[in-house]
Amino acid sequence: MEDLQDKGGQTRTELETLGEFGLIDRLTRDLPVHNPQSTLKAVGDDAAVLRIPQGHVQLVSKDLLIEGVHFDMTYCPLKHLGYKAIAVNLSDIAAMNAKPLQVLVGMAVSNRYSLEAIDELYAGMRLCCDRYGVDLVGGDTTSSRSGLCLSITVIGSALPEKVAYRSGAKENDLLCVSGDLGGAYAGLLLLEREKREFLANPAMQPDFKDFSYVLERQLKPEPRLDIVDLLAGLDVKPTSMIDVSDGLASEILHLSKESDCGCMLYQEKIPVDAETCKALELFKILPEVAALSGGEDYELLFTVDQKDYEKIKDCRQIKVIGHMVEKAQGNFMVPRNGGLIRLVAQGWQAFNK
Amino acid sequence: MEDLQDKGGQTRTELETLGEFGLIDRLTRDLPVHNPQSTLKAVGDDAAVLRIPQGHVQLVSKDLLIEGVHFDMTYCPLKHLGYKAIAVNLSDIAAMNAKPLQVLVGMAVSNRYSLEAIDELYAGMRLCCDRYGVDLVGGDTTSSRSGLCLSITVIGSALPEKVAYRSGAKENDLLCVSGDLGGAYAGLLLLEREKREFLANPAMQPDFKDFSYVLERQLKPEPRLDIVDLLAGLDVKPTSMIDVSDGLASEILHLSKESDCGCMLYQEKIPVDAETCKALELFKILPEVAALSGGEDYELLFTVDQKDYEKIKDCRQIKVIGHMVEKAQGNFMVPRNGGLIRLVAQGWQAFNK
Repeated sequence: MEDLQDKGGQTRTELETLGEFGLIDRLTRDLPVHNPQSTLKAVGDDAAVLRIPQGHVQLVSKDLLIEGVHFDMTYCPLKHLGYKAIAVNLSDIAAMNAKPLQVLVGMAVSNRYSLEAIDELYAGMRLCCDRYGVDLVGGDTTSSRSGLCLSITVIGSALPEKVAYRSGAKENDLLCVSGDLGGAYAGLLLLEREKREFLANPAMQPDFKDFSYVLERQLKPEPRLDIVDLLAGLDVKPTSMIDVSDGLASEILHLSKESDCGCMLYQEKIPVDAETCKALELFKILPEVAALSGGEDYELLFTVDQKDYEKIKDCRQIKVIGHMVEKAQGNFMVPRNGGLIRLVAQGWQAFNK
Repeated sequence: MEDLQDKGGQTRTELETLGEFGLIDRLTRDLPVHNPQSTLKAVGDDAAVLRIPQGHVQLVSKDLLIEGVHFDMTYCPLKHLGYKAIAVNLSDIAAMNAKPLQVLVGMAVSNRYSLEAIDELYAGMRLCCDRYGVDLVGGDTTSSRSGLCLSITVIGSALPEKVAYRSGAKENDLLCVSGDLGGAYAGLLLLEREKREFLANPAMQPDFKDFSYVLERQLKPEPRLDIVDLLAGLDVKPTSMIDVSDGLASEILHLSKESDCGCMLYQEKIPVDAETCKALELFKILPEVAALSGGEDYELLFTVDQKDYEKIKDCRQIKVIGHMVEKAQGNFMVPRNGGLIRLVAQGWQAFNK
């Protein structure tokens, strides 16, 4: 994560010294344009002006990230937060089997934040935009009475026949997932433990050695746009697709519900990295539980027709973890020791007190 | 404002009884599709899928509305807030001389709000969407630790040659404004006065008779999409355009800066409604001051070539209030009694403590 290292500056400039327009000018200065054919006018007018590639349809999604709900400033550096805010939105476009082109960034920020802090946040957002060739074309910057609120809108495009919806899975389609699962949750557990220890003893130094992978999974997730390319290269069109933001169980239930199917998942097939298992062991959590209910892995979960099995079977980045069944059969996991466990979405109960 | 009357329901249902997905299902149930050619897939997947009308470019803008910064729940009914949140975004598309097609709504809400309150908010948003034939195609719903945060993204389209930027004004172009100005600020002053009196004596009943127009200007602004149609009907393409959200002075300075011009504004030409003048008198505020610095009128400010004067001169809804000059001459208002007053943007100092 060297490219996200804090520069360690100690200056503090109050936001009020720039005012709203001054801040916007600063944050949008020298923005690169990666997609000049599509991004006709970026920031600086009442709206951005875009041209959709010939023959393409457009994909649009948005996410809110709220301090104290989606992130904790105690252990989430602002540059990482900026990177992640963009990355999770790009993941929504990847989940449609499409490519992102533009983002718009809304930010409400309190006086508690310095200009240097906001610079860090934007540096992280720009880094992610640059890595994935996405243009920052607009947004809104305002004050808040408490905390930080980020609102990202992402725009992408694809040929209409390439778009993968949640609703296209059919009985007997293979259920596949990219990468590995549970790591982001393991990283969160480690960070929360360190926070508790830090609050008890502020002089402590975090001990994160041996856990760089799971920390990166939590702090700096990457959208799996490489999988979109990979599938295109293999000439495989997923019959349905979603990204894993709330946990595997919840996402499987979304695909099943929208596709009017059921699903059979095999516990032994769920990919969990060795470091993730080691970290979860510290908290006595089973790897499958983290994969099923942890969330924030931002891998792609998708179904393919059985005839495409030969095309994907040798891909190290794609694992077949189950198959779709008829709706009446429901959604189950087959555990290693046999039997059946009904899949339920633990998900995230946003409004519980 | 009959269509925005509160139904006066007394039930209170906690948001947690529905959970995140239940709330989203409820809020997005039975959404109409006004633009089936363009809105291919609305809510329910990782992203909305849109088709841009043939030959058109796309306009995208977004706004954040934060409780305690942009609105005060003491006097802003939730249904009005919902309506206004959509309306001010549609205004950004009107300001590009274009038509809105879709919106996405992000909402972060605390447990302080009941389900019935959120229903009211959405009813207002839907009402505005329906009135202007705009589709609600997606968004994000989450919890917040305090207060309400709304994030609206609006999408529109226009033929590329019809798009009006801030940057197209030329020396000698006529500066025009739609409708009248200062009313929204007068309405705000009245509402704030009533709030102070209510806090001092909660038994008081607000006395708003004779001020329905300025209250409506503040609580339920309308985007001037009718002016976009009117100009098209007159075959007038504005050389530059912006909407009046921060006050006339600030917007004139934006047009001048982006167009590399100066501007001469005539005080006597600034349109202010009689009721607005009467309300402002109560606060000993000059009508011109409210028009120049009050903001939130959401009228359209634009420039037209002198050759188009004949086409617009009889439009009751459009008033010529000045003309563009060369940049070196700067930006001035000519007061009734002669002389020159330099235009400055009072605007809104978002980050002052």
